[in-house]
Amino acid sequence: MVGVPTAKHTAKQATSLGIPISLLDDHPHIDLAIDGPDEVDPQLNLVKGCGGALLREKMVEFALDKFVVVADENKLVDGLGSSGLAVPVVVVQFCWKYNLKKLEKLFKEEGCKAKLRVNADGKPYLTDNSNYIVDLFFKTPIKDAAAAGKKMSGFEGVVEHGLFLDMASVVIIAGTEGVSMKVK
Amino acid sequence: MVGVPTAKHTAKQATSLGIPISLLDDHPHIDLAIDGPDEVDPQLNLVKGCGGALLREKMVEFALDKFVVVADENKLVDGLGSSGLAVPVVVVQFCWKYNLKKLEKLFKEEGCKAKLRVNADGKPYLTDNSNYIVDLFFKTPIKDAAAAGKKMSGFEGVVEHGLFLDMASVVIIAGTEGVSMKVK
Repeated sequence: MVGVPTAKHTAKQATSLGIPISLLDDHPHIDLAIDGPDEVDPQLNLVKGCGGALLREKMVEFALDKFVVVADENKLVDGLGSSGLAVPVVVVQFCWKYNLKKLEKLFKEEGCKAKLRVNADGKPYLTDNSNYIVDLFFKTPIKDAAAAGKKMSGFEGVVEHGLFLDMASVVIIAGTEGVSMKVK
Repeated sequence: MVGVPTAKHTAKQATSLGIPISLLDDHPHIDLAIDGPDEVDPQLNLVKGCGGALLREKMVEFALDKFVVVADENKLVDGLGSSGLAVPVVVVQFCWKYNLKKLEKLFKEEGCKAKLRVNADGKPYLTDNSNYIVDLFFKTPIKDAAAAGKKMSGFEGVVEHGLFLDMASVVIIAGTEGVSMKVK
């Protein structure tokens, strides 16, 4: 068994526990990942990335045979963007304000407010790849997540976004009534 | 007049010459840019980025009223990718080999060879935003540049690519017979 970590701190932790780790470069095909989302919609589309590691997570989770998602029932939403949690977008540092405004405009209909993610000291939060994160907050759910995802990916200076569409194979939901499962 | 530079060295040079400079953040709308491409096809689509500043160039040139391209006639090609020069793709450092292989596979029909750009000392070339560049070399021209551009933008870990499609307003061509002009 070999693990492909998606964040520097999990790589460190795995190594300290004696788990052999590798990279997508050397293991481009991965059997299984288990991960927790911020939101899950009825089609098993996800919002992820409050943790800030979404670029690496997405790269790894696209190389998967099986992507198992584990979530509390309070993560279930009717439409993505409606939990009140941020939908994060990774942007290059160069002209981040310009991209923040473009993102707000893209989601004008959804009443989007975009904010640069900052640390406790007020300085911009840096991803593992030294990019910034713009957090999007919505008044109403995202109308067409597939179209919005493609548009965001096409924006110059947008590195990645937190919509994980059509990727989850199984969602295991822990609720007050017990555990249930949704399969794609 | 205010200039919006696309590379650190041009910003330095402009400042040393007393030209006021700004950012897209403060000037999201730009009247004019003049730039030179690596390739120009009959529809005025371009390949750019041998210089490595393509991300910033693309961000600025999308915010333009008028994008004037100046080129020698030897930059004219029937199809993008056929000059023998590289089509550059900016990728994050994380798992760059994985993306190199994905890019080669995307352009399998065109006989694409992908190479990490390196400096004279053999170390990876770094962009102004600390990303890597994968240079794509083609045996035959790119068949559907629009589709390929969208696919590359959607790859996790691809920050930007050197196809500048549907962006040039005017191309001024300097040839042995004099100067000619193509207008979109």
